[in-house]
Amino acid sequence: MTSSPQSLHRVNYAAPRSFGTLLKANLKETLFPDDPFHEIKNEPISRRFLKGAQYFVPIFEWLPKYNFKLLKYDLLAGITIASLAIPQGISYAKLANIPPIIGLYSSFVPPLIYAVFGSSKHLAVGTVAACSLLIAAIIEGKVNASDNMPLYLSLVFTATLFSGLVQTALGLLRLGILVDFLSHSTITGFMGGTAIIICLQQLKGMLGLKHFTTHTDVVSVLRAIFHNRKEIMYTRKNASLQKNKKPKLFWVSAIAPMVTVIVGCLFAYFAHAEKHGIQIVGHLSKGINPSSIHLLNFDPKYISAPIKAGVIAAMISLAEGIAIGRSFAIIRNEQIDGNKEMIAIGLMNIFGSFTSCYLTTGPFSKTAVNFNAGCKTAMSNVVMSICMMLTLLFLAPLFSYTPLVSLSAIIMSAMLGLIDYDKAYHLFKTDKFDFCICMAAFFGVSFISMDIGLMLSVGLALIRALLYIARPATCKLGLISETGLYRDVEQYPDANGIAGFLILKLGSPIYFANCNYVRERILRWIRDERSHTISKGNEIEFLLLELGGITSIDITGVETLLEIRRCVQAKGIKMILVNPRLGVLEKLMVTESIDTITKESVFLTIEDAIDACRFSLKCSDHIKTENLAIV
Amino acid sequence: MTSSPQSLHRVNYAAPRSFGTLLKANLKETLFPDDPFHEIKNEPISRRFLKGAQYFVPIFEWLPKYNFKLLKYDLLAGITIASLAIPQGISYAKLANIPPIIGLYSSFVPPLIYAVFGSSKHLAVGTVAACSLLIAAIIEGKVNASDNMPLYLSLVFTATLFSGLVQTALGLLRLGILVDFLSHSTITGFMGGTAIIICLQQLKGMLGLKHFTTHTDVVSVLRAIFHNRKEIMYTRKNASLQKNKKPKLFWVSAIAPMVTVIVGCLFAYFAHAEKHGIQIVGHLSKGINPSSIHLLNFDPKYISAPIKAGVIAAMISLAEGIAIGRSFAIIRNEQIDGNKEMIAIGLMNIFGSFTSCYLTTGPFSKTAVNFNAGCKTAMSNVVMSICMMLTLLFLAPLFSYTPLVSLSAIIMSAMLGLIDYDKAYHLFKTDKFDFCICMAAFFGVSFISMDIGLMLSVGLALIRALLYIARPATCKLGLISETGLYRDVEQYPDANGIAGFLILKLGSPIYFANCNYVRERILRWIRDERSHTISKGNEIEFLLLELGGITSIDITGVETLLEIRRCVQAKGIKMILVNPRLGVLEKLMVTESIDTITKESVFLTIEDAIDACRFSLKCSDHIKTENLAIV
Repeated sequence: MTSSPQSLHRVNYAAPRSFGTLLKANLKETLFPDDPFHEIKNEPISRRFLKGAQYFVPIFEWLPKYNFKLLKYDLLAGITIASLAIPQGISYAKLANIPPIIGLYSSFVPPLIYAVFGSSKHLAVGTVAACSLLIAAIIEGKVNASDNMPLYLSLVFTATLFSGLVQTALGLLRLGILVDFLSHSTITGFMGGTAIIICLQQLKGMLGLKHFTTHTDVVSVLRAIFHNRKEIMYTRKNASLQKNKKPKLFWVSAIAPMVTVIVGCLFAYFAHAEKHGIQIVGHLSKGINPSSIHLLNFDPKYISAPIKAGVIAAMISLAEGIAIGRSFAIIRNEQIDGNKEMIAIGLMNIFGSFTSCYLTTGPFSKTAVNFNAGCKTAMSNVVMSICMMLTLLFLAPLFSYTPLVSLSAIIMSAMLGLIDYDKAYHLFKTDKFDFCICMAAFFGVSFISMDIGLMLSVGLALIRALLYIARPATCKLGLISETGLYRDVEQYPDANGIAGFLILKLGSPIYFANCNYVRERILRWIRDERSHTISKGNEIEFLLLELGGITSIDITGVETLLEIRRCVQAKGIKMILVNPRLGVLEKLMVTESIDTITKESVFLTIEDAIDACRFSLKCSDHIKTENLAIV
Repeated sequence: MTSSPQSLHRVNYAAPRSFGTLLKANLKETLFPDDPFHEIKNEPISRRFLKGAQYFVPIFEWLPKYNFKLLKYDLLAGITIASLAIPQGISYAKLANIPPIIGLYSSFVPPLIYAVFGSSKHLAVGTVAACSLLIAAIIEGKVNASDNMPLYLSLVFTATLFSGLVQTALGLLRLGILVDFLSHSTITGFMGGTAIIICLQQLKGMLGLKHFTTHTDVVSVLRAIFHNRKEIMYTRKNASLQKNKKPKLFWVSAIAPMVTVIVGCLFAYFAHAEKHGIQIVGHLSKGINPSSIHLLNFDPKYISAPIKAGVIAAMISLAEGIAIGRSFAIIRNEQIDGNKEMIAIGLMNIFGSFTSCYLTTGPFSKTAVNFNAGCKTAMSNVVMSICMMLTLLFLAPLFSYTPLVSLSAIIMSAMLGLIDYDKAYHLFKTDKFDFCICMAAFFGVSFISMDIGLMLSVGLALIRALLYIARPATCKLGLISETGLYRDVEQYPDANGIAGFLILKLGSPIYFANCNYVRERILRWIRDERSHTISKGNEIEFLLLELGGITSIDITGVETLLEIRRCVQAKGIKMILVNPRLGVLEKLMVTESIDTITKESVFLTIEDAIDACRFSLKCSDHIKTENLAIV
């Protein structure tokens, strides 16, 4: 009798790794997937200290190499984004129901902090519409802004502090993984829904003027329509330009808001608009940010609102800030460390809350303008910050003539750009479930509320994620003739099954949530296969499970494998495992299940398994015939 | 110039399946993984109707074939479980703070319903300690049982109705998948924690008697200790017996509770125990279940408690009932349809709530006794039901002398058997995370509350599930010399990398929650590989991604693949995809990303990819040298 043919390829049954080793490896993969200290590893201690400082405070890295040539670019970009920051700051502050000057303050301190700690070269710091509205909506639930502005404002600052703390904590704990659960689809829907409610709110505000005087009404509505048309035009152009990648023309969109404000101011000033009932921003006092530490309010009576607003706004602003930073870094083939970004955004919000700023992040629009204006480093944020300081010190009163309708127009123009029809259509065309996730956010935000819409969408995305693992795909493999390859028979119709064998490829981890399914599915494969082959007369004798796609398995999964083995054995079928990966094989050895399955039933390749099985069949046939001969 | 060598193995680019086909396939896998109607498919319509009726009402299937021989077995088993049902019914009713007679009622109607609709042959219907306590704990939060028993009782019936409705609905909607998320580890911890609090509660009750009279105290505590010792002894024996698979001796444990009750009754009756202050069960009226439809209470003031109790108890009792049914079916190589079981358990609770029964399911202990007593079909439940009816009609008053301490002893003995040290130790030894999930349930239930403990544990299990998919394992493949096999270099240390190539095997679906990780991880592989190979002078020129383990991908995942391609291209590396599965390839085609990646960069095997890449390298070298020659 010849020796078994399986001797060539041997499965490695080395002793399983210790718990400590596994824990370290898993923690590293979970929390430090980018191996942030790889540059420091092989350096002497003094260099390590410098590298460490450069790692945690990126300005140490780029400032020493900074030169005049770079400054030219950053100066231009910085001034451009400052011209955007002024109108947007005032507008979004109005969305958050806080005094407009807070919006200007918020573009002074946070950009400086970001320039020190941020790792993105293109991110432009500023306030964002969605979070402004979200904070307002949640805090208005506790305190009415028009009734008690000081209390309302103090809660907004407190919410900003909580946002900053949450963001910094997430970064320090390296929990960027939480932000990963806000998918592009969710963000697209959320932004679109937010844009819709903001636009409706603005329109309502514009048309609400009707009840004051008929005269004002005509003027303001006409102005509104005029501005809107202009703005919608700009936005359309802007949107299409950005998509067609013609960065030269972005200037039009970059300066449009500033032009709107200036034209509005001049009109209001010379026409004495306030006398005709056109509402203007009103008094803006000179001077830079006052301290707001004494305003932070931890009164247990109100604290739930700022905590809720802070946590939700923290997640959304992180998702926006990190996503936009990453997108532009990828265009330039650079890399962004998400966790470092979180710390930078968190710190700027913490310091912001101490200096009369409210929530800031890296808005899509402003960052795009910054990028297109040619910024080279975070210095553009410093330039913007200096521009804002000069504005606050000298020019602030000039902006007090800005008509509110101009602000509405600016907000609406920005909002219309956030409704991404193309993306939604693309989702619809390519992935219906992603489209549902997007629509859940869109309609949830539009018709219920911002936080519920967001949670609906994230919940749906999580359900999808859980379905992925609760119903892992299994497929039957067949031999593609003349190639020796075993592939999915559905995908490759010319792949044929092998008589007597059923070869199944399992995917995804096997564990408690899917083990019942896996068992049922495998038994169903056997049933189906039998009903097909029964007419041809060749029974299945071996069930080959290709485990190469299974990365891990838990106790329940191991028990399931043993159950499957028992079930098929009762039907006279032998279960064979092919190519179990490290984690799976280790778990089989630790639980001693490998002794039940037997090492002789585990093979490295499908060919080996089939050869060995045929060999054993022949042997048993041989023995049978021998026995017959003896009889 | 020769033609490219890749012509042999061709990737199949057939047109993607339509949305309808995909939806149908996915729905089927999600909701009908066991293909329940496979037997009906190829039958004529009349047979289909019969088969359908047999499918939905299993009694139609087994009753016509029933014979006297089977009845003998079922009679014995039925009487045995009835002798268990009487003491357990009274005891658990006490746990739920409801009159003991309800416990007896609950073993009369539900078993009859289950016998008609249930598909398990071994499941014995009865009340369970954990759910009794859970219902009591939640409803006590609204109404105090001792203050207003009629209201309390009506809410318990209402909770039972809700449980039944939830269970039936889950079964009809084929959402057995929800029960899958209660893992063995969670159940083990939950049962253990419940056992601990029930034991403490019983002990407190026993020792609480101290404050009545000193005389009673000694008697009752001694009795309690006596009973406990006896019972603990029984339980130990019982547990070890069940594990050692010696079913002959299970009788000891099966009749122990009944013996305890009878001895207790005789003692209480002849010693006139109630005069000495030993509390007894008290009056039990003759007669079978009265209707309780008029007692169902949907008062909005209280409704939240029965809904909450109903839903949580429904899930736990389903998990217990289905798990135990499956375990015994597997021993006998039969199959249990989880969804059908849900409908059966749900219907028996709905009818139960109409006939003065509270929540029932298939308890572990009782089902084990039923199995060991040799039951053959669900007829054993009918026998038990008839025994209960006779008891209710004629014997009920006899049990009114049962001393409460006997009940405590019975409860504690059953509870101690639920603390599964061995399982916990096994979990600790083999899977630390599963152990944590188990301990979360155990300590959560012991120290916080039953529902919070359960949710903590399920939450932890879900986080683990999400981590599985958020951090999919990737590994580097190398060629095991002389075999032509590409395997994980960590698992097979004799597998060697190939100069110029980095071959990575990805696992699990790629989608929004893990795409950032996947990108970072791949870039880190490249970085690590470069730092290793840079000394040897051979740069990576090709990145091969083995996608055979990836079962699906979403839009974000596709975008990530394109980003990875862009990133590595900037480093002068070409990205090659190997063996994409059906779902992945379809998504690449639908999104038209395949045109960016190019079909020339997708191969069916690693060998093909390497051959083709080497060929193209040679060609370009050839062209270079030709160009040099021309120059």
